Amino acid sequence: MTNATDIDILISEVGPRDGLQSVAATMPTELKLQWVTALAQSGLREIEVGSFVSPRLLPQMADCARVVAHALTLPGLFVTALVPNLKGAEAAFNSGVHKITMPISVSEPHSISNIRKTHEQVYEEVRAVVTLRNERFPGIEIEAGLSTVFGCTLQGVVTDDDSIRMAVKMAELGVNEVGLADTVGYANPTQVRRVFTRLKRELGALAGSAHFHNTRGQGLANVVAALEAGVTTFDASQGGLGGCPYAPGASGNIVTEDLVYLLESMGLRTGVDIDRLVAARQWLEQGLPGEALYGFIPDAGVGKNFTYAGAAQ
Amino acid sequence: MTNATDIDILISEVGPRDGLQSVAATMPTELKLQWVTALAQSGLREIEVGSFVSPRLLPQMADCARVVAHALTLPGLFVTALVPNLKGAEAAFNSGVHKITMPISVSEPHSISNIRKTHEQVYEEVRAVVTLRNERFPGIEIEAGLSTVFGCTLQGVVTDDDSIRMAVKMAELGVNEVGLADTVGYANPTQVRRVFTRLKRELGALAGSAHFHNTRGQGLANVVAALEAGVTTFDASQGGLGGCPYAPGASGNIVTEDLVYLLESMGLRTGVDIDRLVAARQWLEQGLPGEALYGFIPDAGVGKNFTYAGAAQ
Repeated sequence: MTNATDIDILISEVGPRDGLQSVAATMPTELKLQWVTALAQSGLREIEVGSFVSPRLLPQMADCARVVAHALTLPGLFVTALVPNLKGAEAAFNSGVHKITMPISVSEPHSISNIRKTHEQVYEEVRAVVTLRNERFPGIEIEAGLSTVFGCTLQGVVTDDDSIRMAVKMAELGVNEVGLADTVGYANPTQVRRVFTRLKRELGALAGSAHFHNTRGQGLANVVAALEAGVTTFDASQGGLGGCPYAPGASGNIVTEDLVYLLESMGLRTGVDIDRLVAARQWLEQGLPGEALYGFIPDAGVGKNFTYAGAAQ
Repeated sequence: MTNATDIDILISEVGPRDGLQSVAATMPTELKLQWVTALAQSGLREIEVGSFVSPRLLPQMADCARVVAHALTLPGLFVTALVPNLKGAEAAFNSGVHKITMPISVSEPHSISNIRKTHEQVYEEVRAVVTLRNERFPGIEIEAGLSTVFGCTLQGVVTDDDSIRMAVKMAELGVNEVGLADTVGYANPTQVRRVFTRLKRELGALAGSAHFHNTRGQGLANVVAALEAGVTTFDASQGGLGGCPYAPGASGNIVTEDLVYLLESMGLRTGVDIDRLVAARQWLEQGLPGEALYGFIPDAGVGKNFTYAGAAQ
């Protein structure tokens, strides 16, 4: 993660990965590059630009190495990518990303159904990735992104104990950071406050980001609770693209535009310029014509009482 | 307000007033009555069923007395209505409502532009309404619903001091309760926590409800902050109907369905059954065909990990 001192909260934009891999169409590479540039120029400091997966599985991500190469030329941008396994990690390390994120299901049924791996097999994979990093790519960070932390469509309830146990295990295996994700939009603010507080207590500086979905409209409410638990990094996606959309109107990821407005209104500096961020939608609209985008701020604009956090009063 | 001990949070459904007066079409009275019945049967304890205003100004509210009469027959329902002035108050008192709410702009420019009254003239009106109530209708409650508390489209920033001064003034004039409204969707959680905490400190038991709009998608985030400040009554509207919609997709009021899910997930009892509440939409859809309704829960359903607060674990 970036160590900037001129922001209070780091927004990690996941649209180019989580968003683009969730839609059926493939965005042309040239437009992706323009979009990533525009996102970075709006002030976003960290962007998850793609996923190193088999292009047979996700043709939308086939140009991932090229997008990384471009993103690395953008001044000050922290470039991350998702990897599901050792093979993807090696490709990501070779691409020169600053950080990789490995999704790890706390729910074992979800893990088996999704990637056909038991927890023990997942530990083996993480161990191999950490070893590879330590031996050949010591400068690159590894984040474990725990999924199904707040509930699972297969097993229903996921206990705090199971999530924290998995987080501790990941720290023991040598990852740099452990984030928590509400994979299916089941989280509520009481639970979010409780689990992130405990994560921080158990992992200290290794406690990482919050990744919320807005499937049930509770995304920003969960952000408020996470802020109280001391979370300082939030994943979000321009236009809410991605994040397992469930139904029309039920957007997936929390919307970056609305999140920036929330945080800046609350007096928390994000470094992002809302007008420039909204303008970056043009590339997404051009690259994925007709794709539904979500968010209130692009339509309603900021309030007349709005000032950026840290602006002279 | 109701004094039920089997709920933690009172949701005051304002759709039949705030919602129906905001749309161009007039919902047929018979369907309104069915809708109010269905809302009450879902477990809602308080409904603002209409507005006692000139039918020339708001023909949608011309049948208000009839809706009140019907609502009063529904067991256990606390029936409220909005009134802009003494004339409306008298009509409301005669109808037998349990409570009236008078909207009071903290922003004087907004008050003058909206109802052509200075603050001094507003105080006169409230004084007259309280006197009438005290003399002839002692059992009926009066709430002052302060508007533009969190900002104003005319004057921009509204200070906490101005809002609290107005709240104290209303208490001195003899109202039973003072609620705070984010009339134009400008509120943020930091401000909400701060202003409601101060309201409670200044007014004690007279500190009333929170009325948030979702114009900028921040409605439920503000609810989380208000809960922390000890607020126990929230206005909301089925389908988000009403609340000065600003742009397509930018719903007005916070959505009752999503609010119930938020609160119950957090372990706070509302008394509302989500399935029955969602089913009540049929009357709205029948009475206002084609009108846009908002909300995530009606589409996405509750999570598989969901249990009602207070349900046996």
